Amino acid sequence: MNSRPKPIRVLQLGLGPIGVSSAELVLHRDDLELVGAVDCDPEKAGRTVGELIGSTSCSVPIVADLAAALDESRPDVVLQTTGSRLPQVADQLKCCIRGGASVVSTCEELLYPWYRHADLAEELDTLARARGIRMLGTGVNPGFVMDLIPVMVSASCKRIESVYVEREVDASTRRGPLQQKIGAGMEASRFRELAAEGKIGHVGSCESASLILHGLGWRADSLTETIEPVIADRAIQTDFVRVEAGRVAGIHQVAVATRGDAEIVRLDLKMYVGAKEPYDRVRLAGDPAIDLSFKGGVAGESATIANLINAVPRLIALPPGIRTVLDLPAAADGRV
Amino acid sequence: MNSRPKPIRVLQLGLGPIGVSSAELVLHRDDLELVGAVDCDPEKAGRTVGELIGSTSCSVPIVADLAAALDESRPDVVLQTTGSRLPQVADQLKCCIRGGASVVSTCEELLYPWYRHADLAEELDTLARARGIRMLGTGVNPGFVMDLIPVMVSASCKRIESVYVEREVDASTRRGPLQQKIGAGMEASRFRELAAEGKIGHVGSCESASLILHGLGWRADSLTETIEPVIADRAIQTDFVRVEAGRVAGIHQVAVATRGDAEIVRLDLKMYVGAKEPYDRVRLAGDPAIDLSFKGGVAGESATIANLINAVPRLIALPPGIRTVLDLPAAADGRV
Repeated sequence: MNSRPKPIRVLQLGLGPIGVSSAELVLHRDDLELVGAVDCDPEKAGRTVGELIGSTSCSVPIVADLAAALDESRPDVVLQTTGSRLPQVADQLKCCIRGGASVVSTCEELLYPWYRHADLAEELDTLARARGIRMLGTGVNPGFVMDLIPVMVSASCKRIESVYVEREVDASTRRGPLQQKIGAGMEASRFRELAAEGKIGHVGSCESASLILHGLGWRADSLTETIEPVIADRAIQTDFVRVEAGRVAGIHQVAVATRGDAEIVRLDLKMYVGAKEPYDRVRLAGDPAIDLSFKGGVAGESATIANLINAVPRLIALPPGIRTVLDLPAAADGRV
Repeated sequence: MNSRPKPIRVLQLGLGPIGVSSAELVLHRDDLELVGAVDCDPEKAGRTVGELIGSTSCSVPIVADLAAALDESRPDVVLQTTGSRLPQVADQLKCCIRGGASVVSTCEELLYPWYRHADLAEELDTLARARGIRMLGTGVNPGFVMDLIPVMVSASCKRIESVYVEREVDASTRRGPLQQKIGAGMEASRFRELAAEGKIGHVGSCESASLILHGLGWRADSLTETIEPVIADRAIQTDFVRVEAGRVAGIHQVAVATRGDAEIVRLDLKMYVGAKEPYDRVRLAGDPAIDLSFKGGVAGESATIANLINAVPRLIALPPGIRTVLDLPAAADGRV
């Protein structure tokens, strides 16, 4: 049944830790072909992807100019791993649209861009439809554990009253940029200043909650988010940072949606260095109730890259425009 | 964003315990409208659905003739809850196709009809495509726990070596027909005779395994199934049957797919009266490994009915033909 189609041509945009691993996984997949790589870092542009990942077998050059790379390599899909905020990456997205390439992105706000950037989302969606390409934001979170999974398992519920997701992540095992993003090693007062300015914390909690609301066809009266520091109870040394006892170990971030007096969605995320028993737990109150746990949690970077790459063959069969992970089928026909 | 479209017109075909609950749930949904009901049982035909479910508000008549009911009520979708084996229900499916109605069915073999009935599946698929309608087999198992969930969570894996699913169900809480199907109360020798003749046990284990193989793009060298009795270690009384100690409490059914020397899929199902700690567990060996448990398991009948009904708005947007649960998006746009 699975006749082997031509590989999907892929360009990797962004070669930070996630982008490099993404390019590596593309090279291991029979159904994908790495045809281009773009990074604006002058240390990287001019080298080959093979040099970056320590493999001689890949001679795809890294270039700095996205438009030229698109023109040169004619990818079907761009894997974008460059920024968390939609306005940061919008010019790149427009460039991809002009180049006729669909985009699968780790941009957290692209998971559900209508939440924070309705006008920009509308503009991008219209451009994408006109050009016949698709755009999707995904990853392990947002994109899987705290949004897709609860909606997906709601298929087994006749009735749902509320959704409650807890995720506890040991940031010690994660990449350096993530440890910075959660304020590991910082003083609590500084953390709170940055949190108040929206400069620290996980991006995507409200997008995840919005996606759940959308997926369940729910309307909320309010959607709010809080960010608090998790304080280290002992000194912790990671590969990237040393956290003294009493300093910030990471974040505790909670998004809550209400309707009337009822809390209908609660997404409770702790990411900190030194978490001893990471886990993910998804509970739906309803008929039947669902209580689902991932032992040890769904591992961060690998799972983000997997979600990114596994979305590619499933996305390209969908109608053009901005799509969400809720639109994806569980498997692409003929997926390898 | 969710403008309310016209409700989807639904006909309930089969009014056993599952069918009655299915019709009830349809009546509770704003996005669905019950327009017809069919059952061949002369005790039921001639009454109304409302009489059967103990509600005066539904006057939809139950009729015995499917073709006439289709012609009369012009449903968009037929909910079929009549049989486990594809050849048993094929005439009904053809009748639905002729009537221009898509079908969502609890027929276990329709989950992946190509496994046991390649020719019949081909015939039905061709007819369905020609008439522009869709057919889907679903339920909690097969259709969710032991097949869709492992494929769906594989989105978070860069690489998968094997899939192992365990499901333990307390059949005491399930409907009478299910307790019969698993041989509760029988002598072990009689159970083994019936198992050897294929007349007892859960239908769908090999279909679930085939669906996983399809979803992961895997080829197997072998796919085999074993059925053993679970013997009661004490007397158990349910609403439907009394099981003496030493008699059959239920089934232990295992489907295994191998490639070379490696076991790549193992689906281990125990359904018996008196199971003390029901659960579902899905493990994927790979990078990252996934170890996922549903505490208490995903409750049987309610979850089957939910999967059936929740599939309706998601199915009708798909291309015509026989579809599988792997083709369904996690949510339909505008789903209520």
